[in-house]
Amino acid sequence: MSAKLKAIFDKNGSLLVNEPLQAKNLVSALYGPTPKEAITEERSHTNWDIDEMHKFIEGSEEKANQILGLYKSLERDPILSSTFDYYDLTKEQEREMVAQRIDRMSRYSEVESTEKFLRRLQIMNIVDPSLGIRIAINLGLFMNCVRGNGTDAQYDYWARYKENQNLKQLYGCFGMTELGHGSNVAGCETTATFDVETDSFIIDTPNISATKWWIGGAAHSATHTVCYARLIVKGKDYGVKTFIVPLRDSDHNLHPGIAIGDIGAKMGRQGVDNGWIQFTDVSIPRFFMLSRWCKVDREGNVTLPPLEQLSYISLLEGRVNMATDSYRTGARFITIALRYSVGRRQFKSRQSDEHEVKLLDYRLHQRRLLPNLALTYAMALGTDRLEKQHKRILEEMEQAVSKNDKKLINKSILDTKSLFIDSGSLKSTLTWLAANLIDEARQSCGGHGYHSYNGFGKSFNDWVVQCTWEGDNNVLAMSVGKTLVKNVEQVLKGRNISTETLSFLNNSKELINKKIILGSEKDVHDVFTVKLAVQSLIAKYSASLVERLKKNKDWDLIGPQRVALSKLRAHYYLLETFEQRLQAVGPTSELGVPLGKILKLYYVTSILVPFASEFISFGVVSNEIIEYTNTTFASELCLAVRPYAIGYTDSFKQPDNITFSLIGKYDGDIYENYFTKVKSLNPPRAFKAPYSDKLEDMLNRQSLEERDRFEKSKDAKDILSK
Amino acid sequence: MSAKLKAIFDKNGSLLVNEPLQAKNLVSALYGPTPKEAITEERSHTNWDIDEMHKFIEGSEEKANQILGLYKSLERDPILSSTFDYYDLTKEQEREMVAQRIDRMSRYSEVESTEKFLRRLQIMNIVDPSLGIRIAINLGLFMNCVRGNGTDAQYDYWARYKENQNLKQLYGCFGMTELGHGSNVAGCETTATFDVETDSFIIDTPNISATKWWIGGAAHSATHTVCYARLIVKGKDYGVKTFIVPLRDSDHNLHPGIAIGDIGAKMGRQGVDNGWIQFTDVSIPRFFMLSRWCKVDREGNVTLPPLEQLSYISLLEGRVNMATDSYRTGARFITIALRYSVGRRQFKSRQSDEHEVKLLDYRLHQRRLLPNLALTYAMALGTDRLEKQHKRILEEMEQAVSKNDKKLINKSILDTKSLFIDSGSLKSTLTWLAANLIDEARQSCGGHGYHSYNGFGKSFNDWVVQCTWEGDNNVLAMSVGKTLVKNVEQVLKGRNISTETLSFLNNSKELINKKIILGSEKDVHDVFTVKLAVQSLIAKYSASLVERLKKNKDWDLIGPQRVALSKLRAHYYLLETFEQRLQAVGPTSELGVPLGKILKLYYVTSILVPFASEFISFGVVSNEIIEYTNTTFASELCLAVRPYAIGYTDSFKQPDNITFSLIGKYDGDIYENYFTKVKSLNPPRAFKAPYSDKLEDMLNRQSLEERDRFEKSKDAKDILSK
Repeated sequence: MSAKLKAIFDKNGSLLVNEPLQAKNLVSALYGPTPKEAITEERSHTNWDIDEMHKFIEGSEEKANQILGLYKSLERDPILSSTFDYYDLTKEQEREMVAQRIDRMSRYSEVESTEKFLRRLQIMNIVDPSLGIRIAINLGLFMNCVRGNGTDAQYDYWARYKENQNLKQLYGCFGMTELGHGSNVAGCETTATFDVETDSFIIDTPNISATKWWIGGAAHSATHTVCYARLIVKGKDYGVKTFIVPLRDSDHNLHPGIAIGDIGAKMGRQGVDNGWIQFTDVSIPRFFMLSRWCKVDREGNVTLPPLEQLSYISLLEGRVNMATDSYRTGARFITIALRYSVGRRQFKSRQSDEHEVKLLDYRLHQRRLLPNLALTYAMALGTDRLEKQHKRILEEMEQAVSKNDKKLINKSILDTKSLFIDSGSLKSTLTWLAANLIDEARQSCGGHGYHSYNGFGKSFNDWVVQCTWEGDNNVLAMSVGKTLVKNVEQVLKGRNISTETLSFLNNSKELINKKIILGSEKDVHDVFTVKLAVQSLIAKYSASLVERLKKNKDWDLIGPQRVALSKLRAHYYLLETFEQRLQAVGPTSELGVPLGKILKLYYVTSILVPFASEFISFGVVSNEIIEYTNTTFASELCLAVRPYAIGYTDSFKQPDNITFSLIGKYDGDIYENYFTKVKSLNPPRAFKAPYSDKLEDMLNRQSLEERDRFEKSKDAKDILSK
Repeated sequence: MSAKLKAIFDKNGSLLVNEPLQAKNLVSALYGPTPKEAITEERSHTNWDIDEMHKFIEGSEEKANQILGLYKSLERDPILSSTFDYYDLTKEQEREMVAQRIDRMSRYSEVESTEKFLRRLQIMNIVDPSLGIRIAINLGLFMNCVRGNGTDAQYDYWARYKENQNLKQLYGCFGMTELGHGSNVAGCETTATFDVETDSFIIDTPNISATKWWIGGAAHSATHTVCYARLIVKGKDYGVKTFIVPLRDSDHNLHPGIAIGDIGAKMGRQGVDNGWIQFTDVSIPRFFMLSRWCKVDREGNVTLPPLEQLSYISLLEGRVNMATDSYRTGARFITIALRYSVGRRQFKSRQSDEHEVKLLDYRLHQRRLLPNLALTYAMALGTDRLEKQHKRILEEMEQAVSKNDKKLINKSILDTKSLFIDSGSLKSTLTWLAANLIDEARQSCGGHGYHSYNGFGKSFNDWVVQCTWEGDNNVLAMSVGKTLVKNVEQVLKGRNISTETLSFLNNSKELINKKIILGSEKDVHDVFTVKLAVQSLIAKYSASLVERLKKNKDWDLIGPQRVALSKLRAHYYLLETFEQRLQAVGPTSELGVPLGKILKLYYVTSILVPFASEFISFGVVSNEIIEYTNTTFASELCLAVRPYAIGYTDSFKQPDNITFSLIGKYDGDIYENYFTKVKSLNPPRAFKAPYSDKLEDMLNRQSLEERDRFEKSKDAKDILSK
């Protein structure tokens, strides 16, 4: 019998046994792990100039050099540099450290250009997003709100005269969301009632759901808030406007009428003191109302000029930054995971009888990580373009308004529309993709990915709020999708699209009439044909929704489809940018060759495969080519990129101070780096827990009968039953 | 000009403005939020008996009642009940609390049946996975390893005589993984060298990568470990075997030769004291080797019997449990998210001029949550079956071995194979899906989903380790995929499949020859046709891989496809179970009607849509029907399920003590529950942070010139330039 049983197991041994215990593939016959040597060897494959690639990725030599300079500065700074005890901080400790870092950052703000300071902040944001957002709330949201909604004099007063631009005197927070109101700002319930007698506004929280909620910095740091509140004048509700409301005096004591609380622990960003605020008849002077657009005069006459929407551009900066953050955070974690994947070995191959196999030599591992590498390159180029686009429009608008150049104002309004679409689709699409990237990269490092000192966990937790704040991703994406459908509808009616960013849809009619565009293997190898295919899909998809809306004019019905369209639009932006940049550098140049592979891997694994059923449904790609793309082509591209994995990630040039992960260091000495630091931060001398006595008491406890004082014994029974 | 500009904005206002600031849809004209009334009204739609549905979900009246009893017991227990300060605990505090809970649990283990105790543990695991795993490591991994690898006498000694089964005297941990070795257990480097002179084994850690790593409980709790180490006898390496190694004495002092450290902070499960262990020439008596299968006698003769693989069944319990955990955790978070989605309102609809719209009335919101609700039902039924299957096989094998019934041994080995496949594909597929579910549910609650007291963040962090431990999901799934391909290969060669769980593939030849199975709308409405379509896809997909392997016998090449096959196999298991259970209850009965809707929604959104391109590539579903399924049908099913969302989740019957979320309580009084608890746990009196002085000093600092002691002033220049 046992021989027979054995035979059953032998024949299909691998069915049952995931971890064979029999002594085969003996470790004693293998080399031990040599991760450092492995990464050095991998690094030697790189056949391009890393510095040149870095400049290409960052978009210009000047920007690349500035970033390298900042890396140097931050690594050396005693307060801003990364140390691994960071990952052990409690919420309270983290908040204190962030406060110390804000102070330190404020010193840089006094001596360097705004542009450099914001780049410094962007880089700090990779490793300390709590710091990033605490400053961004003040200098970004608070000050941009004043800039967008206040008069020039008001902005000047708070930013310069009161020195807030250098993080001095006051510290602003952004009192927009309420307990019961998030995405729908127009639904805010806080009131600002004009009192003509005292020439002031009375700010009041009418009920619990009107409590300002999530307000970053409110709990402990902010001295002032921008308050979104309904303007009530002479009993009339003019809708939500913005007001400056002081919260604390210069000794950080709360003003009368202000109730503030810490909202408590969060999934991430523990270093941010989010708070709630309730106002009880708080009086502020009339000139604390931000009044670029809406003015209330001494008698309570309200003026509502038509251009209020212009103020919105100032809130787009956050979305642009979050798109860029997606690239920088993606670069960090794909670097860590790929370094680990060439140093870590697992299972012996049948082909070789020496080392165990490197993780990255498994096809599945390649398929999990290399598409994310390609995506990161695409995000880098696309978000560099978005940053430049944002900067150009800001300058254009400033110029237009200051010169009162009507033609230019008109143009900059159209450009702002483009930026709304681009930043909205990119913010939502890329923050989601970056969350996936961090998670997949973590899982690819197995158990070690779960260890705090390797960075994934905290960063994931800090990251994912990007998907729901400052425009919830789904709300933003639906808005972009709606715009796409409306624009295609216009084109089908014979009109032209005025927003430049969607001008590729001006020939929607031809795009819709196209038959299968990707019908041969040759087609998917050609980026121009693929671009056309994406254009065609967007046009056809939008047109199909136009048809559906004709039957039932209910935009809500097509919510999921609008989100899909927004994602496609974001990818089209990245694809177009990548293709143009590749043309500029030359596809056969030293950089062009490795970039060409990455570009193909990007569009195959981030566009063609994930949207396969859409491409098929709308007849843009043939069934056979989708199958080929998903299997053979994707696999070949991964294999083509594989040998250069370390070179590709080295080209991001993030130093150890930024990758900030024990298993992801440049030298690749995974086990030494990891063990040494774990041991030094958790000294083995403390082998007894502070609660050890609890465990000892439990294990050494008396028997149940003894603890029951033998009340349930036979003796007791004899007595008690009498 | 401004009129023209205004017109541009008016026409396409929604393009630009996500949060319109103009006073339309005035809140003052709306009802305030009334979440409590809303949930009561929603609840009244339920047209089935909640108790009966709960019994159906849990699989039997007995089990359902036991669970309700445990809910009651846990809610009242002073140590085990949930309190919201839990979400504020530091790592150290959490560990201490878990130790206290282990102690408390040990008292229940003394007085209730093992089966009830394990159910208690399973339920505690929903709200405190650190507690769950700390006990499971000892009673599950440690004791099951002794049971599987030790003799009956050895098991009896440690479990009963030494009372470990009641968490007394000793506490075991599971020393399997090493710093350099995870999934490949056969690669472990720790050595156990037999010393014939002293009749003992010398346990030693030869180098850094052989350091035992991640060992749960090692840092502070465990007194003993099972140690996976290479058996070396007379210079010969017999591969990895298991040994009991004492780590600490009864006072919790470390034994000589044992070095242990805390591995430090992790992404989640902070309540677990994971540690590393290094052994330096630690001597253990020969009888501490677990020797059911491999024996070393006094003279150093080694016996290796053939049935060692039988020991593996004891390690499957963990995978079965993790599949069930996926259901219970899924039920928790879909309950929270759906309760919030009917209480929370956002934006005013054009149709209504009263309330803002409930989140769940948006089609996109339905599409995000209701498929996860359906999935949870499918997981409940499937994992109940898996639990029963596991229990049956254990009993069968015990009986077979004790009676030495050869036929029954044979059968139970085949059944174990089935269990390997089923538990492997379900553990990997469902733990991934549950992670997605928690994340999507969190995002659907917007900012409030990010708040710790609502439960998502901590649970996600505690959860996701399930995807990489005890069989990394990808490794497990590839193994299942390989088995599927091999079995189809056998069938194509004319042989029969012996493992019952794959017997549906015995007619692979017919399945492969089938043309399009889902070719009309009617087809996708019929669960039997859909089942056939899934069978056909699995057969065709596997057969295509058999073909590929003929060209290149490299299993690694098809790694990604093997993972996809494993997922399909898991879904087939759920689909088959659901269909059978539905037939049993009667599709037109009181429960059958709501269950029928859920079943359809499950297979449409979890099988047909996610695997659309596979269904199309292999010609199982037509392009038109995929399009119909993804849009119209999915949308209709969501709408059909929508009115009963609260009834469906109420039927899980998880009490507030288990859903453990302020916005997810049964009474639906979202804002009151949330605000009151936040305020009581974070008293607003503490409006100054402990680090407030740092911020005050920063804001009130002198000017840069003053702090520079005027060294860069004109006066100084005049002097210093002289």
